[in-house]
Amino acid sequence: MPTSRLEAFSDGVFAIAITLLVLEIRVPGQGESLSSALLHRWPSYFAYAVSFLTIGIMWVNHHQLFKFVKATDRKLLFVNLGLLLCVAFVPFPTSVVAEFIRNAGQARAAAVLYGVTFTVTAVFWQLLWYWAIKRPEILSEHADRTALSAIDRGFWVGLPVYAAGTAVALGSPIASVAIFGAIAVFYVFERPLARER
Amino acid sequence: MPTSRLEAFSDGVFAIAITLLVLEIRVPGQGESLSSALLHRWPSYFAYAVSFLTIGIMWVNHHQLFKFVKATDRKLLFVNLGLLLCVAFVPFPTSVVAEFIRNAGQARAAAVLYGVTFTVTAVFWQLLWYWAIKRPEILSEHADRTALSAIDRGFWVGLPVYAAGTAVALGSPIASVAIFGAIAVFYVFERPLARER
Amino acid sequence: MPTSRLEAFSDGVFAIAITLLVLEIRVPGQGESLSSALLHRWPSYFAYAVSFLTIGIMWVNHHQLFKFVKATDRKLLFVNLGLLLCVAFVPFPTSVVAEFIRNAGQARAAAVLYGVTFTVTAVFWQLLWYWAIKRPEILSEHADRTALSAIDRGFWVGLPVYAAGTAVALGSPIASVAIFGAIAVFYVFERPLARER
Amino acid sequence: MPTSRLEAFSDGVFAIAITLLVLEIRVPGQGESLSSALLHRWPSYFAYAVSFLTIGIMWVNHHQLFKFVKATDRKLLFVNLGLLLCVAFVPFPTSVVAEFIRNAGQARAAAVLYGVTFTVTAVFWQLLWYWAIKRPEILSEHADRTALSAIDRGFWVGLPVYAAGTAVALGSPIASVAIFGAIAVFYVFERPLARER
Repeated sequence: MPTSRLEAFSDGVFAIAITLLVLEIRVPGQGESLSSALLHRWPSYFAYAVSFLTIGIMWVNHHQLFKFVKATDRKLLFVNLGLLLCVAFVPFPTSVVAEFIRNAGQARAAAVLYGVTFTVTAVFWQLLWYWAIKRPEILSEHADRTALSAIDRGFWVGLPVYAAGTAVALGSPIASVAIFGAIAVFYVFERPLARER
Repeated sequence: MPTSRLEAFSDGVFAIAITLLVLEIRVPGQGESLSSALLHRWPSYFAYAVSFLTIGIMWVNHHQLFKFVKATDRKLLFVNLGLLLCVAFVPFPTSVVAEFIRNAGQARAAAVLYGVTFTVTAVFWQLLWYWAIKRPEILSEHADRTALSAIDRGFWVGLPVYAAGTAVALGSPIASVAIFGAIAVFYVFERPLARER
Repeated sequence: MPTSRLEAFSDGVFAIAITLLVLEIRVPGQGESLSSALLHRWPSYFAYAVSFLTIGIMWVNHHQLFKFVKATDRKLLFVNLGLLLCVAFVPFPTSVVAEFIRNAGQARAAAVLYGVTFTVTAVFWQLLWYWAIKRPEILSEHADRTALSAIDRGFWVGLPVYAAGTAVALGSPIASVAIFGAIAVFYVFERPLARER
Repeated sequence: MPTSRLEAFSDGVFAIAITLLVLEIRVPGQGESLSSALLHRWPSYFAYAVSFLTIGIMWVNHHQLFKFVKATDRKLLFVNLGLLLCVAFVPFPTSVVAEFIRNAGQARAAAVLYGVTFTVTAVFWQLLWYWAIKRPEILSEHADRTALSAIDRGFWVGLPVYAAGTAVALGSPIASVAIFGAIAVFYVFERPLARER
């Protein structure tokens, strides 16, 4: 299978998952004061923005990675499907965080779920990256070695950072979600691929 | 990253956001008289049509803008992601307006939320436009200067008009939503790109 | 704007609307006997199949029509957006029919809503077709006149048939929905474009 | 109609159906303990993964099949639309299985619904495959006969295996769902197309 098909299908899943995030923001009921209910929804808006940016950056990275890939095989398809399974799952922990982050007794479980989702996603990124760049039958000969190294460093940072953010959730759930937001903003401004234009 | 990828991903988000709008129209319960319940849903149909046309026009404008763009960079990706974040958010204020526009005490907050969403979206349009046309490394040499000026005027009108519509919401929420509908219809018939075929 | 963009965006809306139909089939509650509750859901399955086939055929017709179109302009964009507004709306009347078709007192309103949706959609098809084939600046010179005439006949049949189906809903709602299903099956087997391979 | 259009539309339906699966995982209510409620959701995660992999493999097979097809006709369009109707339906039985698999009295009906959905889908695959490879006006001359035979064997296995899994549901619903999961994992690792790179 050529990589273009895999990329088009992956694009579709990224675009749909990112757009389904809005469904987690519940419309207030008729009994409440609407303006205060809308302001009270801030965790929903925040979780929406964090998940939106995180998926958006993953989409950018996905294209970046596949620029270096000349062919796909069984392992790559399998790992990519695993990655998409995680991406398409993101709306669920996003809803859980939005619903429970202000609930003192439950916020920890919500933030851990959110962090575990991103950490498992980072594991699939590592596998995808590793299986793509370590095999000459997959890696394009035209891949720019300098760019590869830069991305390599970027990808390896992801897993420990998300794992650390998940560990923080055990102590302070809100700090943990703020860290995931900061990671997203950091990647927007600093991701390696930004260097090439 | 070539602009084609960015456009395909953006197209996906526009198409999904516009189609998710229908989910805000709630099916009446079994206890009600269906025909009167369906007629009573008019704010849902109206909000659906206004948001549908507004997103549809944004999609047309997005393509129009990217015809003049030869390359993307970090800033453009970031601003475009911000714009898509707003577009994908539209189904939420649409639902809120549909639910609360007839509720005398709550309609104002609903219409302000709707207007603020469109106004923030217009800010991202301005940024996208400004960062696209002011830099020679982004703007295509083949861009038609006359068309550019026409679109430029069209874009700069958007922000004050949406801000004014939001201000109107403080006095008359229904008038405000009617204004947003009128803007959409106006752009359908009069948008600059209509001049070229 | 080239027609390819308009087609890609339209494809997206068709594909999403057709896939959102499944969300109308409600999962039974824990209190009911699942097997009888699932069987009791037959109007949902039937409405799902009818709407799925109808949107699927519209998608086929849309491509067929745009094979004859060499350029788009303001009118065509506007009418196409109106058509997509109707297509994206279909999941709502589908849900209403599935929910109310067995409710003696309410089935009529549900079937009329369903029929009116398809009838208004047929009006937009007529406009789209008329504005496409009557203007030399839009119609491709390579359009096959024989195929055009065959499609022309097919399209003109749509509006009166859907209007008649809607009228039938006033007397027998179930007969009306059965007619819409029969129209879909008829078009699958007999549509003009089937003649070319 | 060229096959590229049919493939793009089918891709869209596959990508949307696979991403809608996440909507079946319900967010726990405020009254429950979140961590135990999240763990208690395991059937939802399992059903999500099984349906995700199954649809993902179908998408891979769909492309594999259309590599051998040079043209489409009426029968192929009809059978493909029937296949997509089944694929887009999958989120519903997935929700039902997730909701009822632990309910001793209702699990059987849920697993049978799940199995029947996959079995009917397999019937459409057989029809699609049969009508594609048996007719010289549809099958490409460049189709690799060895690859064709390998896929042929793969496809013919699908129907009896899914039918058997459905029969197992009558005795042990959980074993049945586990079988559907095992089939998906088996196809990921062993599908014929994996042999070519």
